[in-house]
Amino acid sequence: MKSDNLFIENKAYELRRLSLIATSQAGSGHLTSCLSAADIVAVLFFYSMRFSVHDPRNSDNDRFILSKGHASALLYAVWQQLGLITEHELLSYRTKNSVLEGHPTPRFSPVLVATGSLGMGLANGVGMSWLARVENHSYCTYVLLGDSELAEGSVWEAVQLAAFYSLSNLVAIVDCNGLGQSGEPMYDHHADAYARMFEAFGWQTYVVDGHDVAALMKVFDEVGANQNGKKPIAIIAKTIKGYGIKQVEEKQGYHGKTFAKKELDGLLDELKKRFPVAAAYQAPNNWQPKPVTTAHHSNNAHHKSIVATTRFKSGEKIAPRKAFGITLAESENENLIVLDAEVKNSTYTELFEKRYSHRFFQAFIAEQALVSVATGIAACGKIPFLATFGAFLTRAHDQIRMAAIGKNALRIAGTHAGVSIGQDGPSQMALEDIAMMRALVDSIVLYPADAVSTQALVNQMIGYNQGISYVRLTREETSVLYDEGEQFYIGGCKVLRKSDADSACIIGAGVTLFEALKAYDMMAAQGKSISVIDLYSVKPFDVQTVFATVVASNNTVLVVEDHYRQGGIGEAIAAALISQMPSLQFMHLAVDTVPHSATAQEQRALQGIDAQAIVHALSNQRS
Amino acid sequence: MKSDNLFIENKAYELRRLSLIATSQAGSGHLTSCLSAADIVAVLFFYSMRFSVHDPRNSDNDRFILSKGHASALLYAVWQQLGLITEHELLSYRTKNSVLEGHPTPRFSPVLVATGSLGMGLANGVGMSWLARVENHSYCTYVLLGDSELAEGSVWEAVQLAAFYSLSNLVAIVDCNGLGQSGEPMYDHHADAYARMFEAFGWQTYVVDGHDVAALMKVFDEVGANQNGKKPIAIIAKTIKGYGIKQVEEKQGYHGKTFAKKELDGLLDELKKRFPVAAAYQAPNNWQPKPVTTAHHSNNAHHKSIVATTRFKSGEKIAPRKAFGITLAESENENLIVLDAEVKNSTYTELFEKRYSHRFFQAFIAEQALVSVATGIAACGKIPFLATFGAFLTRAHDQIRMAAIGKNALRIAGTHAGVSIGQDGPSQMALEDIAMMRALVDSIVLYPADAVSTQALVNQMIGYNQGISYVRLTREETSVLYDEGEQFYIGGCKVLRKSDADSACIIGAGVTLFEALKAYDMMAAQGKSISVIDLYSVKPFDVQTVFATVVASNNTVLVVEDHYRQGGIGEAIAAALISQMPSLQFMHLAVDTVPHSATAQEQRALQGIDAQAIVHALSNQRS
Repeated sequence: MKSDNLFIENKAYELRRLSLIATSQAGSGHLTSCLSAADIVAVLFFYSMRFSVHDPRNSDNDRFILSKGHASALLYAVWQQLGLITEHELLSYRTKNSVLEGHPTPRFSPVLVATGSLGMGLANGVGMSWLARVENHSYCTYVLLGDSELAEGSVWEAVQLAAFYSLSNLVAIVDCNGLGQSGEPMYDHHADAYARMFEAFGWQTYVVDGHDVAALMKVFDEVGANQNGKKPIAIIAKTIKGYGIKQVEEKQGYHGKTFAKKELDGLLDELKKRFPVAAAYQAPNNWQPKPVTTAHHSNNAHHKSIVATTRFKSGEKIAPRKAFGITLAESENENLIVLDAEVKNSTYTELFEKRYSHRFFQAFIAEQALVSVATGIAACGKIPFLATFGAFLTRAHDQIRMAAIGKNALRIAGTHAGVSIGQDGPSQMALEDIAMMRALVDSIVLYPADAVSTQALVNQMIGYNQGISYVRLTREETSVLYDEGEQFYIGGCKVLRKSDADSACIIGAGVTLFEALKAYDMMAAQGKSISVIDLYSVKPFDVQTVFATVVASNNTVLVVEDHYRQGGIGEAIAAALISQMPSLQFMHLAVDTVPHSATAQEQRALQGIDAQAIVHALSNQRS
Repeated sequence: MKSDNLFIENKAYELRRLSLIATSQAGSGHLTSCLSAADIVAVLFFYSMRFSVHDPRNSDNDRFILSKGHASALLYAVWQQLGLITEHELLSYRTKNSVLEGHPTPRFSPVLVATGSLGMGLANGVGMSWLARVENHSYCTYVLLGDSELAEGSVWEAVQLAAFYSLSNLVAIVDCNGLGQSGEPMYDHHADAYARMFEAFGWQTYVVDGHDVAALMKVFDEVGANQNGKKPIAIIAKTIKGYGIKQVEEKQGYHGKTFAKKELDGLLDELKKRFPVAAAYQAPNNWQPKPVTTAHHSNNAHHKSIVATTRFKSGEKIAPRKAFGITLAESENENLIVLDAEVKNSTYTELFEKRYSHRFFQAFIAEQALVSVATGIAACGKIPFLATFGAFLTRAHDQIRMAAIGKNALRIAGTHAGVSIGQDGPSQMALEDIAMMRALVDSIVLYPADAVSTQALVNQMIGYNQGISYVRLTREETSVLYDEGEQFYIGGCKVLRKSDADSACIIGAGVTLFEALKAYDMMAAQGKSISVIDLYSVKPFDVQTVFATVVASNNTVLVVEDHYRQGGIGEAIAAALISQMPSLQFMHLAVDTVPHSATAQEQRALQGIDAQAIVHALSNQRS
């Protein structure tokens, strides 16, 4: 059933109406950003896209990413109109127990990736459309961006990659409303300027009036016919911020502003008068979007290869980064996708590429895209494992943070850890990566010292789906410490040296474990005995074993780490041990879960960092 | 004195020769990346640029940024040829005590900003050329980039900004050698493709043979004549990676590879045969670069305004972010430059802009550029203060890290801290910023709770020049706690509640301080007494006062923070307190200074994280 223009205009009207109501009810939100994009979104969902309303995560659905995540009310309004949520549920927007958060997260089932930090959606879309090609899916990925958002360099990383991979199944729509938060964007309201930029990067472009439903339908029809082409598609839709409500149209100072509830009736009347025909139209009840095209999965010659598992011999010298590459290449998990940022010969992911080139994504020197593409791939149910120098993961800290918010389980390897990389100097040394990776909800941080433990732990990461897992890898060759078959697990550690007369316990990990073992020998030569722990699992870590070993080692612990002092292994251990000290009570109230939308005071109560939580903690203190 | 072609060709030959020797001697480095750019650099330094050899930091010098920092040997070779260092010093390249690091840092005086994490140099250059305009300097800023580096989105942030500000005094030179670390870049060896991209963004472009000295001279002459134009200039120089040494020319697998010392004589012979005329040329001893043009500083009507200092009244409600904006606007420091990423109405930097628009830089929604531009400005001796949402500073973590390596003193404000921002949801909440900012060498982390302390501490940050200083700011209005004239200092704290019978000490900062004070009242109502500390200076913090207060408070401490558990205030306090516990000895060896180039084992020894340091620490333990 082909929808007619009036039906879509009615839907655009409804989206405006609902966005207005939802933001006024919430008392916060970005109404004017919803109003500029309402016609685009109406045409997309009620005319162009193929998807199942009642199965919003069906793998054959066309994908939609609201990169300009602040227009969240518009997205929720769409799903109210589609029947997934009621108008009553829509009115829970931005309140404490609602999944309709201020910026979209996958807690709301049609949302695949969290957005709200701008400039990431297009690279998420590159991941999804690249995957569609690899897996012979015919779904198309639509990404709606704001014009101000194009200032973010991460957008242009995605633009380059999409062109390089000829992703004509990716459509970027720029809501070119010519107004940012506090002023005009750099290219003002010049839709043609953006079109030239996308074209120069190898995209097919269209410039269209973003409020002309018929024109939008025509463009999307052309785009649909073009999806077997070679170029990704950018539609620059010239719009008016606040379109539909005269007093905010094209005006500064209304970004993130809502109307008071008492003004609502008058504004709803105004909206009706502005779009009388669309408002009066009675939309059919039985409307359904175009059906999805079910993928014909070709078992295209990627038969499971029988791969022998490398056995590392005790005493053998091998760099953990190389053991990592070998492990990936030997994984039998067919959902594993490995991603590189043009350092595959340093991280040894080239070993995986040689065996499974169709499951290898080259992101070039674009670490932000590396992470966002992986996030898009994770959101489609695959297992992305990305690797680059640990130092350069800082480049994608925001992207990693957003993946953690979206609960997209990325597996991340950071090589060239610490000062131990040597001559290349500080710019190439990961010295803050443990701090960065620990401070993510549900994250796992691993730091194996040798090839055997690397192999075991990397395989466990492939199976870890609850959050982001990170493995820190040494550049230099290290001796294999462990025997084949030795067990390692997330949250474990190894007590490598221990006696009845230890004067101290040394905790090391990675390169410093070898220094600790050397120190053990030097102390032994002086007739002194110490215990040594390999803390290969940094988060979580085995508090009980560490505490017991320290107590048995003269109540003395020395943590040695190739990382900045702050936020690393030492502070993690200090906080855990001090909580167990009978002579001092240490209580620490902090944020332990990904927060959602709620008022400030509700937030503090939910996280247990408010006055009530303080009083509660104190009332439970040991007397 | 106009240099002739042969002179420059001789210099290019010498640069190749010295790059070869230096990298072979070091046994590491990126020779082929030096060889492709040798002619470009020879023309720049020995023909085009105006600078004082013996005063490489003269403020009128043309600026040069080696954005492709791995070609560091080439840069050091230039300065050997200019006479700043000897050939003997050049041979210390990449060794323990040398300032000639693997990737350039400002430890070597001609280097203004650290490079080596790719894609930042152009935005550093935007900062410098924007500043030249503001201050009526006539210097020109040249940035040498690699082609693979153009995949980094941060480059395109800088490209947009340079065009927006019409920075025709900024020249980007792309060393288009068509080979990356592990393969070809996305646009292969297509110089024209890059030219189209720059043009579409509003730049003037030239495509030139990067090994044709005469052609390069001609282009740079044209560029020199064009600097009063409106467009920034991109020169795409088509080059051959490894140019000059046949067996590595245009070949994969030689990125970051050096030749063994025993091969050196043969290779030097080959180089001489390849460039016989240039090699034989006797360069004059008395050559000097073109003299600098001394700036005519106009006191262009920016007379110091007499600004009254706002006095905040106890009990008054004002958001710390607003107090921050007011403080900036009232600063009398004329070197202060404030930078925004299009959220000036949220961070209140708009108050500064209104008063000092000529010292305000708008980076639009491009946080990476925000930080790199500020770094370029800091490198020119100014005092940049940048502000955005704390959450979005993660977007520029790598840029902040590089500024810390370069010891460029950035002042950074992160607003909208913690879950306490409320409805907007997790994407907008800074919850890892303290961890990120603490793990920087020489950084300062401040977190004032009210307007009075914000005002005092922001003024101290303006004066702090030893590293990066960060202030974390609350979005919501908070009550003014302190009286006018109250003293605050970096490393200080305030004990706000205290008695002789405290059962616990609560440590809060920012919003949680108010929760702690509420908890105090709730406990008091139960007849219980607790102490409360405002830990407004998180790094460094006042360990002595905290320890003494905890001991006097029943040996009980409760830290409450609006930040993830890891790397924040609680762990900082735990690590400090546990070190003071008589019942347990806690020693923590970690990296405390910015490392330099040295071997892995030397690095660990220098940072005190090797076996020897462990043994030393243990031998000093309390018996």
